[in-house]
Amino acid sequence: MKRNVIVGQSGGPTAAINSSLAGVYLTAKECGAKTVYGMLNGIQGLLEGRYIDLSEHIKNGLDAELLKRTPSSFLGSCRYKLPAAEGNEAVYEQIFATLKELDIEVFIYIGGNDSMDTINKLSQYAQAKGSEIRFIGCPKTVDNDLALTDHTPGYGSAAKYIAISMKELIRDSFTIDFKQGMCTIVEIMGRNAGWLTAAAALSKDEDCQGPDLIYLPEIPFDIESFKAKVKDLLAKKISVVVAVSEGIHTADGTYVCELGNSVDFVDAFGHKQLSGTASYLAGYIAGEFGCKTRAIEFSTLQRAGSHVASLTDISEGFEAGKAAIKAADEGKTGLMVVFERTSQDPYKCGTALRDVNKIANDERVVPREWVNADGDFVTDEFIAYAKPLIQGELAPVMVDGLPRHLAVPDGLRERA
Amino acid sequence: MKRNVIVGQSGGPTAAINSSLAGVYLTAKECGAKTVYGMLNGIQGLLEGRYIDLSEHIKNGLDAELLKRTPSSFLGSCRYKLPAAEGNEAVYEQIFATLKELDIEVFIYIGGNDSMDTINKLSQYAQAKGSEIRFIGCPKTVDNDLALTDHTPGYGSAAKYIAISMKELIRDSFTIDFKQGMCTIVEIMGRNAGWLTAAAALSKDEDCQGPDLIYLPEIPFDIESFKAKVKDLLAKKISVVVAVSEGIHTADGTYVCELGNSVDFVDAFGHKQLSGTASYLAGYIAGEFGCKTRAIEFSTLQRAGSHVASLTDISEGFEAGKAAIKAADEGKTGLMVVFERTSQDPYKCGTALRDVNKIANDERVVPREWVNADGDFVTDEFIAYAKPLIQGELAPVMVDGLPRHLAVPDGLRERA
Repeated sequence: MKRNVIVGQSGGPTAAINSSLAGVYLTAKECGAKTVYGMLNGIQGLLEGRYIDLSEHIKNGLDAELLKRTPSSFLGSCRYKLPAAEGNEAVYEQIFATLKELDIEVFIYIGGNDSMDTINKLSQYAQAKGSEIRFIGCPKTVDNDLALTDHTPGYGSAAKYIAISMKELIRDSFTIDFKQGMCTIVEIMGRNAGWLTAAAALSKDEDCQGPDLIYLPEIPFDIESFKAKVKDLLAKKISVVVAVSEGIHTADGTYVCELGNSVDFVDAFGHKQLSGTASYLAGYIAGEFGCKTRAIEFSTLQRAGSHVASLTDISEGFEAGKAAIKAADEGKTGLMVVFERTSQDPYKCGTALRDVNKIANDERVVPREWVNADGDFVTDEFIAYAKPLIQGELAPVMVDGLPRHLAVPDGLRERA
Repeated sequence: MKRNVIVGQSGGPTAAINSSLAGVYLTAKECGAKTVYGMLNGIQGLLEGRYIDLSEHIKNGLDAELLKRTPSSFLGSCRYKLPAAEGNEAVYEQIFATLKELDIEVFIYIGGNDSMDTINKLSQYAQAKGSEIRFIGCPKTVDNDLALTDHTPGYGSAAKYIAISMKELIRDSFTIDFKQGMCTIVEIMGRNAGWLTAAAALSKDEDCQGPDLIYLPEIPFDIESFKAKVKDLLAKKISVVVAVSEGIHTADGTYVCELGNSVDFVDAFGHKQLSGTASYLAGYIAGEFGCKTRAIEFSTLQRAGSHVASLTDISEGFEAGKAAIKAADEGKTGLMVVFERTSQDPYKCGTALRDVNKIANDERVVPREWVNADGDFVTDEFIAYAKPLIQGELAPVMVDGLPRHLAVPDGLRERA
């Protein structure tokens, strides 16, 4: 590598996305890159000419360690959908003009499904126009729904946050013996893929009985069957704990949260913003059985909880960034880094490369056989798959009682 | 001490309540107590004859360390309001008959305002009847609202959870530059006392700008003024973060969450269960300004988050348990352990004893002078007060990726 690298982060943050950024930066430097630029707010910021020189922020080993422990997207993010090249040449010409101006040799985009669509379009445009810039996708998503990869960096840390928090909530829920019992509904991220909600099962251990029911969005939600299950459980236990995905919906496709009229936002990709599922179900159960209920949403906390990140996840995030640079250094383009598990016990996993065209806009959901017949819990196969991903801790750098993060780059904070 | 001790936990759990239990158990054993019993579900369980021998659960040093790291109330809890002795002699006779049967010399109750009311009534009854049993209160509450003490064990850990989570959420909130900006409303526990909500300010650091606005229940909430402040902030910043107490209310006493019709539960003490404040305000701001909003409730997580407990808090929780036993061993009764800060910098704090009669049913709120003139942020005096309480970490005992807790005692789990 002789010239410059530019890297961006896109979509929702994860606890591992900055570890991938550290992997990209340090490996690019090792490979001889002169300057490593960071787009502010992804491709949208690039179109506005907003980028930074990462060497001004990662000045030494301590900065790199802090970056690995920093929640959110260090460079900021966007949900900008790159239009098709046909009919939108001006957008592409602007991007490539900026890349030429910055003497860019390698373009790395750290993101999920939508971001891989961007890499796909840019690499195809580059090839059509004879550009030598290489475009490599670096995977991240808390949702774990990228195709062709065993799992995705960001998932393990969110799963660990969920497992730890579920364990704490379940313990708390047995505190008081309410007359009619108590039912806690915990709402977990995942619009179409239930990987995160399934992670609630990881809380089950010799010192924790785990949740009683788990409902994923892959399986139509039947409220009558749910009611009957909760009724049976309340007759036996003082506390019933249910994990539900924000995206659970009835057989006719109606989101459960829509039953409570809580949908109020549609993003640039046309995704509905979902929330209120737990609140709706808690109200429903309280109405049916007169028991105490709690509705809890892990909300943004589950993806921002860097203080309980999984070491496995943070390490793999770093490896993904490293592999992306290595691939580009070898002249490859239009590919995404994936993970391949070569051994389950002991857990062994390495990186490989796949055509980004086959990954973009495809969603990998939890296989039906990893959910029990009743559709209300996950199987041991899921546990065996997910458990290795939450192993190990990366001790936060604690200063004055709080985890220290790498300082926010200028240009993200205030309105332009 | 020559005979037996009984200890119970009451009210809402905290991350330090089991450290106090460890302090009570280990110190009682040191002082010569034969058996240390634990009431299951507090005084309510005692009335049902439910208790355990703690030596069967705390068998060695590792068990004690796990207990200190276990969230929720190890012994279970209750919200049972002990009636006045007059006209309810049967209840008191039953309690004292059980205590006699168990050869109890010392009765320790770990709890908040309502629990100190129980200690007060029992100690007065004992004195009236010539019983030699000593009754000592051991303070705990996440709310920090007990009178006559500098602060209360449980508060520091919840404050630390809030500061860390706020820091992570604030960082996450600057990820995407939404067209109309984003406003995040974070709802924090505290019905009448804003100590926990004020702790959101502790997130402010050289790597975090902290929340923009903080609203405590001590000061009437003016929605028009709130709207104007958010409008100004949205004009300058891509992300505005507001911390609100669940108990904020308008000048006429209407809870903000009642404006959204979310009150659905009244507990045995007549306290309304509050939630939906963040959700209501987020909807209001979205409607007024068309910006993206997020409503986040820390909910049970803030009191159950043992994995980020404050070492200062856990240590002081232990000291409170120890001091309670020492006081009883010296023959004292009708007292509660309090904390007295003897030096601010360096922080030094010790235990003392106060008449429980002066503590019960009194609420200590955040002083007006620790809130700014506009009533929308805390002062540096509050920061100086609270910062020492979140210092230090107690590393969780991690097993297979999750914090290990002491196993739940039999008798708490299933319906009797």
